[in-house]
Amino acid sequence: MDVKRNLTMLCDYYELTMGNGYFQCGLGDKTVYFDVFYRSNPDNGGYAVAAGLEQIVDYIENLKFTDEDIEFLRSKNCFCEEFLGYLKNFRFTGDIWAIPEGTVVFPGEPLVTVKAPAIQAQFIETYVLMIINHESLIATKASRLARAAKGRAISEFGSRRAQGADAAMLGARAAYIGGCGSTACTIVDRDYGVPATGTMAHSWVQMFDSEYEAFKTYCEIYPNNVTLLVDTFNVLESGIPNAIKAFREVLVPKGITKCAIRIDSGDITYLSKKARKMLDDAGFPECKIVVSNALDEYLIRELIRQGAEVDAFGVGERLITAKSDPVFGGVYKLCAVENENGDILPKIKISENVGKITTPHFKKIYRLRGKESGKAEADLMCVYDETIDDSKPIELFDPEHTWKRKTLTDYTAEELQQKIYENGKLIYTLPSIEEIKAHCAEEIEGMWDEVKRFNNPHNYYVDLSQKLWDIKHDMIAEHRKINVK
Amino acid sequence: MDVKRNLTMLCDYYELTMGNGYFQCGLGDKTVYFDVFYRSNPDNGGYAVAAGLEQIVDYIENLKFTDEDIEFLRSKNCFCEEFLGYLKNFRFTGDIWAIPEGTVVFPGEPLVTVKAPAIQAQFIETYVLMIINHESLIATKASRLARAAKGRAISEFGSRRAQGADAAMLGARAAYIGGCGSTACTIVDRDYGVPATGTMAHSWVQMFDSEYEAFKTYCEIYPNNVTLLVDTFNVLESGIPNAIKAFREVLVPKGITKCAIRIDSGDITYLSKKARKMLDDAGFPECKIVVSNALDEYLIRELIRQGAEVDAFGVGERLITAKSDPVFGGVYKLCAVENENGDILPKIKISENVGKITTPHFKKIYRLRGKESGKAEADLMCVYDETIDDSKPIELFDPEHTWKRKTLTDYTAEELQQKIYENGKLIYTLPSIEEIKAHCAEEIEGMWDEVKRFNNPHNYYVDLSQKLWDIKHDMIAEHRKINVK
Repeated sequence: MDVKRNLTMLCDYYELTMGNGYFQCGLGDKTVYFDVFYRSNPDNGGYAVAAGLEQIVDYIENLKFTDEDIEFLRSKNCFCEEFLGYLKNFRFTGDIWAIPEGTVVFPGEPLVTVKAPAIQAQFIETYVLMIINHESLIATKASRLARAAKGRAISEFGSRRAQGADAAMLGARAAYIGGCGSTACTIVDRDYGVPATGTMAHSWVQMFDSEYEAFKTYCEIYPNNVTLLVDTFNVLESGIPNAIKAFREVLVPKGITKCAIRIDSGDITYLSKKARKMLDDAGFPECKIVVSNALDEYLIRELIRQGAEVDAFGVGERLITAKSDPVFGGVYKLCAVENENGDILPKIKISENVGKITTPHFKKIYRLRGKESGKAEADLMCVYDETIDDSKPIELFDPEHTWKRKTLTDYTAEELQQKIYENGKLIYTLPSIEEIKAHCAEEIEGMWDEVKRFNNPHNYYVDLSQKLWDIKHDMIAEHRKINVK
Repeated sequence: MDVKRNLTMLCDYYELTMGNGYFQCGLGDKTVYFDVFYRSNPDNGGYAVAAGLEQIVDYIENLKFTDEDIEFLRSKNCFCEEFLGYLKNFRFTGDIWAIPEGTVVFPGEPLVTVKAPAIQAQFIETYVLMIINHESLIATKASRLARAAKGRAISEFGSRRAQGADAAMLGARAAYIGGCGSTACTIVDRDYGVPATGTMAHSWVQMFDSEYEAFKTYCEIYPNNVTLLVDTFNVLESGIPNAIKAFREVLVPKGITKCAIRIDSGDITYLSKKARKMLDDAGFPECKIVVSNALDEYLIRELIRQGAEVDAFGVGERLITAKSDPVFGGVYKLCAVENENGDILPKIKISENVGKITTPHFKKIYRLRGKESGKAEADLMCVYDETIDDSKPIELFDPEHTWKRKTLTDYTAEELQQKIYENGKLIYTLPSIEEIKAHCAEEIEGMWDEVKRFNNPHNYYVDLSQKLWDIKHDMIAEHRKINVK
């Protein structure tokens, strides 16, 4: 299997300068709380899909500064020896809560909350963000693609255009969680259990003296797994006729009717309709038509609307890079600190960009679902010590326009975060990828269509409890008094 | 140092099904030629910067199927035992030519050419493309950013928004080649020698009872490396006054005048001008102003045009993901095969999308530079056995509009590709990152401004020799005769 890399040093340098600073001024062991949250959904969509927790666990379990790392840091002439000594025995001893992978999430919600001594909590910032940002981005994109395809299969084809090896591998993993059915990338099957598939490139066709010979040879070697790429020369004049000839020559005598063709260029709607008719007329109604070529959710929706005869889509670069919106802007913000008595004190970051003001405090998030519909109605963030009693009606209010109010009855309230680490020990059982994928499908099913549409989706409410709202607004007022004269 | 991963299995599954197919039908050892090239410049720019060769060498050197890999492939029930036996001893035995990293390149040019037995050449497709596509994308983006910044420093800040760990690390490497001066990511300094820098996050400020105390403590611990983040509460009312107070309290008594502030939100033009005046008035004219917050080349150009007082830019997500155009569409296409006599026979891929028709044959690329100007005038692709004698005038013609002709005199012709591998042996000395970075800067200097502008850049010509043009057009005509009745 794969050799584990040590990516402990994949941190922003400022995490080390701050760590050394906390160490020197006696703040290193202060217990702090950080939230990972994001501010807006990719592609102006109505939701996102959380992913990456398994890789965060991997990272936490493998945190270790080697002697070479310490030596390297020493050479920067920036860190005190005591701090370097501390790093030598560094390990994560805190608590982590997270929303499980595959869950539908919304802006402002803490996907991950870290409670740990300041140096540790600060240190893991970059890696945790990178993983959550990347995998949630791709899982969200895949979920959009799967909805556009309306039940047709989608295969992830993007490794060659991925932004590096991890983007290829973990992107394919996230794409599977979000709704793809397979990947083109072999290692993802070996390491993450995502089924890898693939048949031929244009070069296969070019290697033979004729397209027909190339097709016939492929059918002979892989009679049970044939997808012929028919656009090397000309789809309708050459590719499809040669494919039909090869099917007749090789598959029909074996009684095989399961086969496929792939079109990778040209006008997919026109070509797929013509191809369907040619295949049907030739007696191959079971031959599937797979299409690829810079597809995304909008093109797929449009192809289906136009009546393109497509059974499966191969989606590459626009999925694996989330091309239309390739940044999932998750941030890592201090939300509370503990004082000497163990009291949890909320912290806030004010900003001249209103959208950048954080929601302070160590929090809980509930998802409120209508009992009858089974659909999610709103999420509610409250202070860690509050509990929602879902046997009683609850009044929700818009945190910006507080006069907008609504009372929910006959609902269930479910906590979204699970505890993953306690005192540095993993206490969560990581689900299998199939379980995560199934959970994601259920989550999507549990959202109203209005939240899922591509254009102007309904703004799903993430409300604050009265207590949390009061704390936040008192702190904003307080800061204005102190800092703005 | 870092443990080497074995990424041999990071291949598209179809490379293995084709490999097994070539093996079974006796084509496995046929010598073939593949070109890596791309079709259009990112961001509608006038050029791209090649990068990634060092990682390709790394990959080739470490190619190896483990017993577990073979076992995994066997479990797919798709490959014959003889082929699995072949993979057990798989290594690359072919030749590779490549355009060195940091070189300015143009659409259609083979950045990499692979000559190898068919199974091998086919097998490395995905990884080679992935590396070239990713690193060239980011190097190109960084080059654009550096030109926009007009000599001001740019630091790469993007790890937390990168699409996985390799995107963070190799993206930072490529960004340095393209023109960034440093990275925020520690491991990139350790492994690739890109200087890592960084000072504080908002959380540092929030950890103290007041912003002033946070600043003062930082100045005390790092008097020689101070960049204070001044926008946690309010830049002009709180951040800058507190920074000035801390500088006066801690740095002035030590005689230190080198310091900086960073602004990460708000109206950068307005705030930086005000900040500059406040710092100058307070006696800190040497205090640098660093800005960040979702910057890209267009915003940087606009900030400078508006007279923003900025000494350095931190650029994160829009660089590390190349957000505005996150796919470098490099492809890997068969361009020639050898027959039993060792004759090199050109191969072409026709397409209904005219832009997807390939330029056949094993080729050479020359860059033609005006002797007087030192600037690149055009590139010329010719057949491998042609040689340009630059002591004689040369007539170039537009490969699409062949009546457009131009005669160059007083020029030099330099071959762009270098031979990297010969019979599987690395024969190229990899330059250091500083050499690559310097080469890139020279290359950019060697291009006319018209090629480098952001809007409607001059279309730099990549011409074909008459011989190559004739071969290509004869093949197109031939294919129409055979395949399109």
